Amino acid sequence: MQEQQLRVGLIGAGRMGADHALRIHERISGARLAAVADPDLDRAQQVAGGFGARATADAFEVIDDSAVDALVIASPGSVHEPLLLAAIERGVPVLCEKPLTPDPKSSLRVVEAEEARGEHLVQVGFMRRFDAEYAELKRLLDAGELGAPLMLHCAHRNAATPPGFTSEMMIYDSVVHEFDTARWLLCSEIAAVSVRAPRTSSAAPDGLRDPQLVTLETTCGALVDVEIFVNCGFGYQVRCEAVGERGTALIGADGGPLVHRSGSWGGTISDDFRDRFGAAFDREFQRWADAAHQGRTDPTAATTWDGYAAAAACEAGVQAQTTGTTAEVDLAERPDFYTP
Amino acid sequence: MQEQQLRVGLIGAGRMGADHALRIHERISGARLAAVADPDLDRAQQVAGGFGARATADAFEVIDDSAVDALVIASPGSVHEPLLLAAIERGVPVLCEKPLTPDPKSSLRVVEAEEARGEHLVQVGFMRRFDAEYAELKRLLDAGELGAPLMLHCAHRNAATPPGFTSEMMIYDSVVHEFDTARWLLCSEIAAVSVRAPRTSSAAPDGLRDPQLVTLETTCGALVDVEIFVNCGFGYQVRCEAVGERGTALIGADGGPLVHRSGSWGGTISDDFRDRFGAAFDREFQRWADAAHQGRTDPTAATTWDGYAAAAACEAGVQAQTTGTTAEVDLAERPDFYTP
Amino acid sequence: MQEQQLRVGLIGAGRMGADHALRIHERISGARLAAVADPDLDRAQQVAGGFGARATADAFEVIDDSAVDALVIASPGSVHEPLLLAAIERGVPVLCEKPLTPDPKSSLRVVEAEEARGEHLVQVGFMRRFDAEYAELKRLLDAGELGAPLMLHCAHRNAATPPGFTSEMMIYDSVVHEFDTARWLLCSEIAAVSVRAPRTSSAAPDGLRDPQLVTLETTCGALVDVEIFVNCGFGYQVRCEAVGERGTALIGADGGPLVHRSGSWGGTISDDFRDRFGAAFDREFQRWADAAHQGRTDPTAATTWDGYAAAAACEAGVQAQTTGTTAEVDLAERPDFYTP
Amino acid sequence: MQEQQLRVGLIGAGRMGADHALRIHERISGARLAAVADPDLDRAQQVAGGFGARATADAFEVIDDSAVDALVIASPGSVHEPLLLAAIERGVPVLCEKPLTPDPKSSLRVVEAEEARGEHLVQVGFMRRFDAEYAELKRLLDAGELGAPLMLHCAHRNAATPPGFTSEMMIYDSVVHEFDTARWLLCSEIAAVSVRAPRTSSAAPDGLRDPQLVTLETTCGALVDVEIFVNCGFGYQVRCEAVGERGTALIGADGGPLVHRSGSWGGTISDDFRDRFGAAFDREFQRWADAAHQGRTDPTAATTWDGYAAAAACEAGVQAQTTGTTAEVDLAERPDFYTP
Repeated sequence: MQEQQLRVGLIGAGRMGADHALRIHERISGARLAAVADPDLDRAQQVAGGFGARATADAFEVIDDSAVDALVIASPGSVHEPLLLAAIERGVPVLCEKPLTPDPKSSLRVVEAEEARGEHLVQVGFMRRFDAEYAELKRLLDAGELGAPLMLHCAHRNAATPPGFTSEMMIYDSVVHEFDTARWLLCSEIAAVSVRAPRTSSAAPDGLRDPQLVTLETTCGALVDVEIFVNCGFGYQVRCEAVGERGTALIGADGGPLVHRSGSWGGTISDDFRDRFGAAFDREFQRWADAAHQGRTDPTAATTWDGYAAAAACEAGVQAQTTGTTAEVDLAERPDFYTP
Repeated sequence: MQEQQLRVGLIGAGRMGADHALRIHERISGARLAAVADPDLDRAQQVAGGFGARATADAFEVIDDSAVDALVIASPGSVHEPLLLAAIERGVPVLCEKPLTPDPKSSLRVVEAEEARGEHLVQVGFMRRFDAEYAELKRLLDAGELGAPLMLHCAHRNAATPPGFTSEMMIYDSVVHEFDTARWLLCSEIAAVSVRAPRTSSAAPDGLRDPQLVTLETTCGALVDVEIFVNCGFGYQVRCEAVGERGTALIGADGGPLVHRSGSWGGTISDDFRDRFGAAFDREFQRWADAAHQGRTDPTAATTWDGYAAAAACEAGVQAQTTGTTAEVDLAERPDFYTP
Repeated sequence: MQEQQLRVGLIGAGRMGADHALRIHERISGARLAAVADPDLDRAQQVAGGFGARATADAFEVIDDSAVDALVIASPGSVHEPLLLAAIERGVPVLCEKPLTPDPKSSLRVVEAEEARGEHLVQVGFMRRFDAEYAELKRLLDAGELGAPLMLHCAHRNAATPPGFTSEMMIYDSVVHEFDTARWLLCSEIAAVSVRAPRTSSAAPDGLRDPQLVTLETTCGALVDVEIFVNCGFGYQVRCEAVGERGTALIGADGGPLVHRSGSWGGTISDDFRDRFGAAFDREFQRWADAAHQGRTDPTAATTWDGYAAAAACEAGVQAQTTGTTAEVDLAERPDFYTP
Repeated sequence: MQEQQLRVGLIGAGRMGADHALRIHERISGARLAAVADPDLDRAQQVAGGFGARATADAFEVIDDSAVDALVIASPGSVHEPLLLAAIERGVPVLCEKPLTPDPKSSLRVVEAEEARGEHLVQVGFMRRFDAEYAELKRLLDAGELGAPLMLHCAHRNAATPPGFTSEMMIYDSVVHEFDTARWLLCSEIAAVSVRAPRTSSAAPDGLRDPQLVTLETTCGALVDVEIFVNCGFGYQVRCEAVGERGTALIGADGGPLVHRSGSWGGTISDDFRDRFGAAFDREFQRWADAAHQGRTDPTAATTWDGYAAAAACEAGVQAQTTGTTAEVDLAERPDFYTP
């Protein structure tokens, strides 16, 4: 048994990387943290230290390490491309936090490299696919229990943004999840994106147009609307209602104990995505580790192609945001290698 | 049309009577307030004044008034018996606020008088029978959609009690509603009552054992448990879950807008029974007026027999409260006249 | 009292008119049906007969009848203008079922006639303003409890359409309610309308583009999206979520008993608007009758101006539907006479 | 890292044992299955085989195995005592599925053995303590957010019973969970138990009195009522409402996607406890393995004392069931060793 422990190299030891280190160590069966890379060596050592892993400032050293069986990339998206290309070249399985890369061109280069290699090695970190509620919604749609899907109504709300958060980030960091879930739930590509904004909330920081209403047209003819509101003030909330020809299904309703107190009934709202999607992250990592053990990727997970498609939709989204018109998504032809 | 307006005499001009005067005047079609009686003549005049009705201190004068077609009795229960006997003698329809009378013996005398008269004239004010949710629960049970009923779980909560509220009143004023709804929903009599109390809430006034847990055995073999908590602090709440052989149904869940705000989701709780059951009171009065126009009583409404059965259950309830044991309900044989 | 009964003349004895006749007779206090007009005299007689009202084929005869104190217009919208102008000329209060008139030009003529008369006489039948949930949402918004409103997300679903239902009717008959509620909730005019449609449901009749997604821009800067789906198959559903700067509130969630049975939990969905909005209709009529008694209109109700503004938004909506672009709403300046 | 894998010996390879083997192998980090014992050697081999563990028919051989660091006992309760005593003697940590032992006398012998050994080694498998909703309810109560607890209303429903299920098992296998959660949530012992039954459901197998209503009195003065209904027909449902002096909190409400379809709204109900409590089992095992690594037990988990107290309550419960009266729970004095 023990020799089968998957030795994981972690690239990026920021908040997300540190979370994932803990996840691998404490909650994932059959995997252990073997090495941690971060340009800030202190930070790498801090994360590695508690788990008996080695630390380095050089990510490529971890990628090349023969004592590393698989990689988790949690570094900024801007540096993903060379890391992914190196990992693909070496043939090592990768769980890459979103985005695959920040723009469709570089994403497409990763797609081409993986296709050339002829092995599915890269899984992109769209963790909602592993959330129990999303999975059940997917099952309902795939089983045809709602009839053919016609619309998705989505809401994605954060209590507040950190300093420096921009309108572009609302697309790249937030709506990107709806891009992926829409594609996944509808088995369809995004054809066009448009963005409108009501008057800006007085709670939004200077320069941020918040909230916005993003509309997606998909190649299957379904319409998707997404309210993105990143300074809603009251907590973290993700909702999705699928409208089909014969019924609707809503996920993301309020959970937890129902409390009655002082003239009111209700419950509490999640603080952030870690609270809401913690179990989905665990499941995502476990399935990835299990698949990596067997030299394959998880069929539920987002592939390199999915990462590329999300990047293309993001590019169109930002264009729509800027121009106020509908932006078409320009997508390469899907290689047979990525046929689902 | 106009000559058909039902001319209503109101006996009792306290808070409940004043509410009912307004109800008859503003929300009931085909009825108008003709006379108001209250020992406190000022109070009678105040209620009558706004609606062009005459006022008197003598209730019997209203009962004997040939310009009064029907009576609403909203005076204290202790004076109901002679009023009801006089109304029955005169053959005038009566909507009598609960209780019919305060004890089973006097209630039985009213039963006997009405039976001797041979006309159904008296309707007792158990307004829950006219609430949309209770009516739907009754429909589900009668249609057999849950299978045969086995249990009812009830909760009856008030924010706080007025000064002078006693443990006996918890039975006579509050649980009496559950006595009637249990009989009505289950088409059965109450056979025995027992009462237990956990430790008393620190919010209860001195001398009041609050909350209590009342258990009813019914002649059809169903069990009913009722949490009665009259100083629960947070508002007015009435819930009933029916458990049948094939399913359950719950009414009294939380309604109104679902609000998300500052880390929490939820809504507000009713202040009191007028808020929660206002529409049921309106429907009760409208159906009574419509039936009185046609010289009959409403088939949904509680009859004199129902008022008597509730008085008998209350007597047993208070006995159970006092002795800590199960008290059997001692009920006369039901006359054919009251066969449903 | 009796001489104060409001004598109501009903114009139009179709399904809606017959409903309203019953409403006035059975559920509205202080009003009675005095006359019924319908070009189909048989139909007029059928509706009038049960309530002791007189019947005629000539609507103007009812308008001119000195034994009629107030009018309910439930005839097709295409004939509303001359009826309204005659009623205004005579100075008789009118409750006019929506639409005021089918197009903004004719609506504006009614506005001008009423303004010239100098009395508020016409109330338009947007009954949602009298629904308990909408009223509570309005209260929350007006009290600032959600902060300034930024968006409304609406869904308006019908089980199926009758034969002959067109895409235009989706705007004129259905979304017109959202036009009015958006204006009313947001205290704002609609500035522009756009319409998109996903692929058409296979359950939609030939020629009907169903569902559609209607987006409204308002003069206060809020955005409103409305899913209109008139062949959704599963029942009648109206939902509205207000998103403010500090919180959100949702109305139209599912009500009634919560049932657990055979592997599933849930409840039932309304069949149609009469089921869902019956109590709102009652309240609307009662408030109108009460106000008419006092020679004024109800301050909550939709005015002639509101009817005109809805007609203008509908015109823009149909234009947006046809052209696929955003259509601006062309609105006359609001006369001081209609300042809220 | 690898040398720290906790080597787990599993005793009992029935349905529950097989589940736990999978759990340890697939979902628990830092632990692996080392040995499996079952009197039916074939069954032991079948479970052990897939995970590279060794199989034996002799449980004591596993307990004595120096290559086993910790034990999971999933054999029938009737054989637990000697296994536990041997494990305590050897000083090996045990996660023992409930019951600790079938009766209070034998449970007390295990208590005494562990106390004599002076080490906390045994954790009893009351997995609800690890369920997210129960944990949050515990937090609310401990933080005083509801005020002092006065009552718990519980419902525990199964779709149907397997052949041979008896009324006693309703206490020992089902209500035993409520015994433990009541003690845990209220920080109190159970003082007395009484049992009532309504008429028996026609869906209950011959000889089984189902449903029943179990009432607990606790030493802190709170009252607990439990509906136990093991042939409710519609699924697996566990609910608990805590009523405090200042508020109430309910867990076990219905989850999953909210679906609207064909005239109804709602969702689905769990099939069984593995579906509802799977995540709690995972967390229970993970925390136990983590604690065992460090040579201690998890502070949240049920101790040997808790197992004993549950056995004593069960004994009283069955007595109450049989006699129809209130049965007092006869409990030894709690040794300081088990002071929380």
